Amino acid sequence: METIRPLAVAMGDPAGVGPEITAKAWNARELHSLAPFFAVGDERAIAAAWDGPVVRIYNPQEAAEVFPTALPVISVADSGEIVPGVPDVDGARCALQSLELALGLARSDAGGGLVTGPVSKAQLYGIGFTYPGQTEFVAERCGIAKENAVMMLAGPTLRVVPITVHVAFADVPGQLSIELILAKARVTARGLLRNFGIERPRLAFAGLNPHAGEGGAIGREEIDLLKPAIEQLRDEGIDAVGPFAADGMFHARARAGYDVALCLYHDQALIPIKTLHFDDGVNMTLGLPIVRTSPDHGTAFGIAGKDEANPGAMIAAIRMAAMAAQRRAETAAAGAQ
Amino acid sequence: METIRPLAVAMGDPAGVGPEITAKAWNARELHSLAPFFAVGDERAIAAAWDGPVVRIYNPQEAAEVFPTALPVISVADSGEIVPGVPDVDGARCALQSLELALGLARSDAGGGLVTGPVSKAQLYGIGFTYPGQTEFVAERCGIAKENAVMMLAGPTLRVVPITVHVAFADVPGQLSIELILAKARVTARGLLRNFGIERPRLAFAGLNPHAGEGGAIGREEIDLLKPAIEQLRDEGIDAVGPFAADGMFHARARAGYDVALCLYHDQALIPIKTLHFDDGVNMTLGLPIVRTSPDHGTAFGIAGKDEANPGAMIAAIRMAAMAAQRRAETAAAGAQ
Repeated sequence: METIRPLAVAMGDPAGVGPEITAKAWNARELHSLAPFFAVGDERAIAAAWDGPVVRIYNPQEAAEVFPTALPVISVADSGEIVPGVPDVDGARCALQSLELALGLARSDAGGGLVTGPVSKAQLYGIGFTYPGQTEFVAERCGIAKENAVMMLAGPTLRVVPITVHVAFADVPGQLSIELILAKARVTARGLLRNFGIERPRLAFAGLNPHAGEGGAIGREEIDLLKPAIEQLRDEGIDAVGPFAADGMFHARARAGYDVALCLYHDQALIPIKTLHFDDGVNMTLGLPIVRTSPDHGTAFGIAGKDEANPGAMIAAIRMAAMAAQRRAETAAAGAQ
Repeated sequence: METIRPLAVAMGDPAGVGPEITAKAWNARELHSLAPFFAVGDERAIAAAWDGPVVRIYNPQEAAEVFPTALPVISVADSGEIVPGVPDVDGARCALQSLELALGLARSDAGGGLVTGPVSKAQLYGIGFTYPGQTEFVAERCGIAKENAVMMLAGPTLRVVPITVHVAFADVPGQLSIELILAKARVTARGLLRNFGIERPRLAFAGLNPHAGEGGAIGREEIDLLKPAIEQLRDEGIDAVGPFAADGMFHARARAGYDVALCLYHDQALIPIKTLHFDDGVNMTLGLPIVRTSPDHGTAFGIAGKDEANPGAMIAAIRMAAMAAQRRAETAAAGAQ
């Protein structure tokens, strides 16, 4: 078995719950058999929410030795005064520097991976950040076109991919195209092989309209876009099925029939995953040269610093990143692609 | 305690699972403490899927005496040959006659209520049925305008109301209006009081856009429609809150914060209810002079006649109808409206 390098965990906004859940994940390292990781951010943000042991390191190679007894932290520049629950632009700069540094370390570090904590987009926009989110930033830094970076949300019993993401409801139909569906599906199929070892993943497509359009009676996107795209994917050897009525796709028996649900818009994907896996959902970006995961929740400023944050999603994100990094390392060692 | 009249259960399409789940519900009458009911339909459809005792009755008053030892059935005209799983227009005529008769009996019977089994809309359209579904048919027969009949889906841990229903995705924004939202919300609030005894129901509204529009950055319906509607409802004394990001509304802790989620389109409401309560979801029509419920699933022709149908939703529909009928009878007896 290949040994993976320590994962880089960018703690996100120092005034949010990111530092606390990172520390709590470290606390649970034995319970969850977590692979070694190090935090990247302002260590004072951890101290504001947690009184466990922290050791500053200067190089990812130091992390494995420190990890059993203390949370290793690579520190970024002073982020000003940190008040949990009260975000500011200094904190946004810290979050962005943490992301940049952790990303750089993950990219330079063949076996490792990147886990990103929650950031405040409103604060980031205040310092000139222009990306819709961390996913797009990471994709661009990795040289990947945005249609080839795929956001997948995953919990213990469901994986979903939203084909459009932060798009107003009324604009969704105009953004959908056979080409976009194909691009996202191909990356998804390849990503499930590469990161999860699923040889021939089953992709189930949701319809856009109620009852998947009832044969064109309630909307035509199923006929005009989804059926041709699914046929094309099948011609390429991808196990694509559907489109199905979205409301019948997410109960337990239905979920057992596929590896990932391809959804057409944000809430079609996010409603079922958050209904089922609110506390342990992971956001994984497929299509990148590196492994990248994130807990599927926000900064939760309202509870920051109160020791109330649930580290479940961060633990799940670290576990999924380690699992995927391990698989990639083994595939690389085996000389396969 | 007022004793309610027996409930009328229209069995739906004779080739679907309706007769089987009606019979299985009767079988489970003691386990689930079901109030007396009688089936309306073709008794041969029951015999095709079930070999338990059936007694033909001619008047709802006979049902209570028969119910402990056999399933009471009021028979409609011969529906032709019945082959489970193979629907035809004779079966559609039988389903429609069953619905008409059961509805008439429920309407003439102050304390009782109507439970409707699944029908095939495709077959009904073949015999000239012009309604989008049974709900609209029942509403019209009761003299209720369609915007004042509200479809609510309910399971043990969630109630949802879709404000638009069988509308193509692209047409949803154009169908939404403050007036429609107000009409549906008022009927919902009153329906929860009347049928469930919830004095001041908490209505939580979902946003239309991702993250409820992020203050207008991703769509404006939250600002232009939902906020004014919610303010108006609050002025009327209705406990309306939101709009909330839809994806965060349906996990267990969020659900504990409201009595019903008001959703803007079919899948926004149906995805969470079917994800959580696929086997025991009930469709209840609010705003009618009678109680009307239905199991929240279709005819399932693919498994009809194979003894595979799960009666959970039919049992839940019968229980909910009986509970609501009981409450209405008590309210009437108390002299309140």
